[in-house]
Amino acid sequence: MKTLNVDLGERTYPIHIGHGLIDSTLLRSAIKGRQLLLVTNETVAALYLDRVLSNLTMFEVATVILPDGEDHKNIETLDMIFSEALTQRFSRNVTMVALGGGVVGDIVGFAAATYQRGTDFLQIPTTLLSQVDSSVGGKTGVNHRLGKNMIGAFHQPIAVFNDIDVLETLPAREMSAGIAEVIKYGLLGDVAFLSWIEDHLDELMGKECSALSKAIEHSCKIKAEIVARDERESGVRALLNLGHTFGHAIEAHLGYRGCLHGEAVGTGMVLAARVSGIMGLLSESDVTRTVSICQRANLPVRPPKGMTPNDFLEHMAVDKKNIDGRLRLVLMRSLGEAYIEDQAPMAILDDVFQACCH
Amino acid sequence: MKTLNVDLGERTYPIHIGHGLIDSTLLRSAIKGRQLLLVTNETVAALYLDRVLSNLTMFEVATVILPDGEDHKNIETLDMIFSEALTQRFSRNVTMVALGGGVVGDIVGFAAATYQRGTDFLQIPTTLLSQVDSSVGGKTGVNHRLGKNMIGAFHQPIAVFNDIDVLETLPAREMSAGIAEVIKYGLLGDVAFLSWIEDHLDELMGKECSALSKAIEHSCKIKAEIVARDERESGVRALLNLGHTFGHAIEAHLGYRGCLHGEAVGTGMVLAARVSGIMGLLSESDVTRTVSICQRANLPVRPPKGMTPNDFLEHMAVDKKNIDGRLRLVLMRSLGEAYIEDQAPMAILDDVFQACCH
Repeated sequence: MKTLNVDLGERTYPIHIGHGLIDSTLLRSAIKGRQLLLVTNETVAALYLDRVLSNLTMFEVATVILPDGEDHKNIETLDMIFSEALTQRFSRNVTMVALGGGVVGDIVGFAAATYQRGTDFLQIPTTLLSQVDSSVGGKTGVNHRLGKNMIGAFHQPIAVFNDIDVLETLPAREMSAGIAEVIKYGLLGDVAFLSWIEDHLDELMGKECSALSKAIEHSCKIKAEIVARDERESGVRALLNLGHTFGHAIEAHLGYRGCLHGEAVGTGMVLAARVSGIMGLLSESDVTRTVSICQRANLPVRPPKGMTPNDFLEHMAVDKKNIDGRLRLVLMRSLGEAYIEDQAPMAILDDVFQACCH
Repeated sequence: MKTLNVDLGERTYPIHIGHGLIDSTLLRSAIKGRQLLLVTNETVAALYLDRVLSNLTMFEVATVILPDGEDHKNIETLDMIFSEALTQRFSRNVTMVALGGGVVGDIVGFAAATYQRGTDFLQIPTTLLSQVDSSVGGKTGVNHRLGKNMIGAFHQPIAVFNDIDVLETLPAREMSAGIAEVIKYGLLGDVAFLSWIEDHLDELMGKECSALSKAIEHSCKIKAEIVARDERESGVRALLNLGHTFGHAIEAHLGYRGCLHGEAVGTGMVLAARVSGIMGLLSESDVTRTVSICQRANLPVRPPKGMTPNDFLEHMAVDKKNIDGRLRLVLMRSLGEAYIEDQAPMAILDDVFQACCH
């Protein structure tokens, strides 16, 4: 087992990466109070709920099973958690445990941020994407019908348990979505890691343990370092949104259905690379390299059929990374070096959309 | 004009107390961005909205007018704010301005805490109660159908403008409710201030400016000092809940209708004094003194007709100040010295309820 710390002063917390963590005494010992609210979704409950519960019998545990999927990441689903906690008369000393992927983690984290003005929150991410991305850094929240992730809070977990064993049951499509975020770390901050991913992509796709372990650890490390420098995204943390402004537009266009977050980010990274290319920052071979690694990871490298350049612009205008209406994008100066472009030229964006939309 | 600082490190903010503040350049200059979301309620809008708006013409302002009253302090009303902000495509650099009493402040503060994971928040409290209490300390939130203030966050404002002039239009009953919280500061931490209130109660009830100004300033000062020592209520801040556990039970019993928060707190302080009396902490004359000042302030000193001892116990069991099921109360060691009693004897509580309920 490896342990990384996300260094945030009094909010510092450990990320454990290893085998058998959901059955471990380490998991039990991370919980301070007596009351536990364990939240998962229908899919994960069928696979892992009993095992996790059997490790937590010494606590007063209540369970909430949410419907599965991004389209349930809303205030109504959030209220299922509040209602159960209040029905159980749980105090502010309850620990909320998120057992599931990014959607479960985001909802439960926000419930923990706001139930009685803040309770402890522990994460057991069950997808590769949530292990490498959404479990690090304390972004929590739900979607609003007028925009993705528009309602939320920064609320750091007390610990994250990245159990590699639970990825065994993860569908191939979700593995690809997770690998999209792993690729993102290479593209935004570490070209040597990008090369390593290219060399080990088949092992990652095949869930080979040592490759997975290294990919998760290195991804969490890159993210943890950035988050430690800028917890509340006033600056450098925005680099983590490489591919996300485009990706959010794709997800919003599709009504958060039919496309995984990581898939949208995959397409978004390709679009960011193409914009960076036309702006003369990336060479043609760098752009091709970006497209190629995403393709090898079975990620969609073009926007969904029927999505128009106008659809992109419309959805990007409400993206929360805009400052007062200017179009702000994360682009690449070179592979492994992302930067924040505050004045992305609309003409180039339009060229890229025209070329890629179909 | 007087200015107090609530000393919270990087979250330190000023409370300004004086005349004509809603028309002042100081108000304008406290706002950093261009976008403003001004939120008020129907009652206050009719009195002050135009005046405040005419002071803010240099900003891009949108307005939300909420329905008036505690029974609208819920997630549905909160969503009116999110929807307007998103419809206006306001970024996370928007400043949310709360123009109203405690309910408006709590809802808008929570909207600001959670819109795009946190925006600036400025308060213009228009009731005495919100000027002396809810505008200090960053507690924000909404009620849940299963419990009062159960969903919320700590989110400090960037500034508070306590304009004494706006109290001119405040109904007498709301003045009394505000005076309840002023009395609370005397009872919990400053017996000399309690004596001062007794000496100046008629001036306060009559809205005499210099008495009001002193009462507001001294109340904010006491609260600010406590909040500075314990921002997130892990200890001493709980003293501010003197009278509140009983008060919340009364409000919950009444379905948050027909009783103002300050009135419920008035009754709650009397009950806390009676419990402290039976426990041998307060003398009979101290208890009488507490009852008498509340009576002189036109506050109800007995629970609402028909509310039973059982009603109290039922509603107090979900109060969020309980730790793991033990009954925690704020009581008084002496007048001017509150303390936290973790093991309040149920028999004494029952005696007091039996004696007071009618």
